[in-house]
Amino acid sequence: MLSRSAWRSGARLRKRRPETSTVGPPARSRPTLEAVATVAGVSRATVSRVINGDHRVRADAAASVRAAIDQLGYVPNQAARSLVTRRTDAVAVVVAEPQERVFIDPFFGTIFRGVGKALAEHGLQFVLLLLEGTTDRDSVVRYLAGGHVDGALIFSLKSDDALPAAVTGLDLPAVFSGRPDWPRHQAGDDVLFVNADNRGGGATAARHLQSLGRSKIATITGPMDQAASVDRLLGFRDELPHLADSLIVEADFSRHGAARAMHLLLERHPDLDAVFVASDLMAAAALDVLREQGRRVPDDVAVVGFDGIAAVAERTSPPLTTIHQDIEKMGRLMVDLLTQAITGPGEPRPESITIPTRLVRRLSA
Amino acid sequence: MLSRSAWRSGARLRKRRPETSTVGPPARSRPTLEAVATVAGVSRATVSRVINGDHRVRADAAASVRAAIDQLGYVPNQAARSLVTRRTDAVAVVVAEPQERVFIDPFFGTIFRGVGKALAEHGLQFVLLLLEGTTDRDSVVRYLAGGHVDGALIFSLKSDDALPAAVTGLDLPAVFSGRPDWPRHQAGDDVLFVNADNRGGGATAARHLQSLGRSKIATITGPMDQAASVDRLLGFRDELPHLADSLIVEADFSRHGAARAMHLLLERHPDLDAVFVASDLMAAAALDVLREQGRRVPDDVAVVGFDGIAAVAERTSPPLTTIHQDIEKMGRLMVDLLTQAITGPGEPRPESITIPTRLVRRLSA
Repeated sequence: MLSRSAWRSGARLRKRRPETSTVGPPARSRPTLEAVATVAGVSRATVSRVINGDHRVRADAAASVRAAIDQLGYVPNQAARSLVTRRTDAVAVVVAEPQERVFIDPFFGTIFRGVGKALAEHGLQFVLLLLEGTTDRDSVVRYLAGGHVDGALIFSLKSDDALPAAVTGLDLPAVFSGRPDWPRHQAGDDVLFVNADNRGGGATAARHLQSLGRSKIATITGPMDQAASVDRLLGFRDELPHLADSLIVEADFSRHGAARAMHLLLERHPDLDAVFVASDLMAAAALDVLREQGRRVPDDVAVVGFDGIAAVAERTSPPLTTIHQDIEKMGRLMVDLLTQAITGPGEPRPESITIPTRLVRRLSA
Repeated sequence: MLSRSAWRSGARLRKRRPETSTVGPPARSRPTLEAVATVAGVSRATVSRVINGDHRVRADAAASVRAAIDQLGYVPNQAARSLVTRRTDAVAVVVAEPQERVFIDPFFGTIFRGVGKALAEHGLQFVLLLLEGTTDRDSVVRYLAGGHVDGALIFSLKSDDALPAAVTGLDLPAVFSGRPDWPRHQAGDDVLFVNADNRGGGATAARHLQSLGRSKIATITGPMDQAASVDRLLGFRDELPHLADSLIVEADFSRHGAARAMHLLLERHPDLDAVFVASDLMAAAALDVLREQGRRVPDDVAVVGFDGIAAVAERTSPPLTTIHQDIEKMGRLMVDLLTQAITGPGEPRPESITIPTRLVRRLSA
């Protein structure tokens, strides 16, 4: 049995030692697991357990093995190790958005904090697979199919994205961010996800603005091909069933798009007195436009955001009233579900989770 | 020969079909490369070339192969493929900093833009390995050693970091960001890197502030355990050899650290009339402090930053004069060097690159 890594290091050894045979197993210059076992005075199985982090090894035996590993400069062959454990101890995180977005939108930085802490607690390496364009998914799917990770956390925001179906087809444990709204027959019914109560949050925003006595209430939504955006608007309309279409402007979760939407709303309705904006980042841009246009916030126009990322909402002028979802916790919960799915199939089967949202009042509404 | 992926999919097949033997090669339900060759009416070698993106295949033959792949639902076995090409078509990017930093500092978002575009042009998947803590490098090194990537781009900023020595010991092609200043004997002499002329940039900042007639010139540096910070200060002192130590305050490339440093400088030297700040992000924080303290910029205090990230420097109030390094280009050049190192060992051997820096004047100085 010749693993890829062994073959690879064999190729390297041959390159440096042309006299060695060019076929067959690699030259024996690399310390083996057997050598470690001999030096440590334990069995191969014990060495293997220590390498694989199995805690059912006596402390003194584990210490001997570690000393032998150090002494010999032994590097566990990942492929061989994986043949034992079938594990890479790594989890892929895929965001089906252009990579720039990942670095600009604080949602990702925040949720990755939760993901990173939870992965570290499980001893799992965080492998973020970045996409250059908006359409090409092949390279990522190939990597996921290649046995380089034990599972995947998928942030696929658009309902027409090809990624979810490709991932669920791989038979690789996966957890999705947000409720799936791609066609069920493609994805199967057993998709695991962590979602926020976006609909409830939209309704809370509307009720709060009504409670302030506002009557001309507008909204800047996220893209309507994303479930989270649709749900926030649905909840908002639950409380404002007679909302005119001209008071709803769709934007793209970017600052620029939100600024344009705010300008459009002010042109259409110079008398508007409240806006619910579907993300804090967009709300910050809307506040800038309102200030430029001489509107006082909240006196003339009350503004409610969505996300509750303190680093954004506390820094706006005035500080932003917003619908809070615990984004870092959502990241942790995604890892919890994934590690259960990787370890499984146990009972009870892990279940998808929807966490609540709540109003956090600051000064903008 | 039983690859890990084959074993893994074999295990899955067994799970679903308990009557299958539990040892030996996986069940033959998966379409093979041979089947694709038969259906396409070409040789195995031709199928292999198409799968591996080798362009020396006639267009009609390539089209037949792709059609056969689609028809059969063939998924190339990554491990088998790697045995042919010894490639994963993936490149790891490692930042030896806590992951939060990666998402907050626009330097990384900018350089990753260059890295991402260049990797996509080469058909390589961008694999960002994130670290949770500041010290644990084992998990990353294990992943790099595991044959999951063809090479690595390393952003290791601190001179006492264990990562460079661990990576250069792996015999994996690697390119570093910034000149290495870890001990030579650990890292070897043949480390490839892409650097900016930080020392020249520091000198340019000092000359510019002097040319404005400023006489009480201070500086907020980056951490002194990072080569880039040291070089910026060295260049600054090249032009201001009599600079008092009390006019130099070290910060940590964070907004918070820079604000504290600016307060300290104003306490020590209420009459200072210029500050060179070693990053744009820190300069933005220093401008906030100066405004809070009632100092007009540039009339009372001139400020020069470093980085030249337009998204930061154009948004400060007033817009920031800064030393520009082409960060996106540095990302591209790192990929260029790495792909040469992966393809190599050719002649001429790729060489490390230092790109120039230049003054970009806006309003702050």
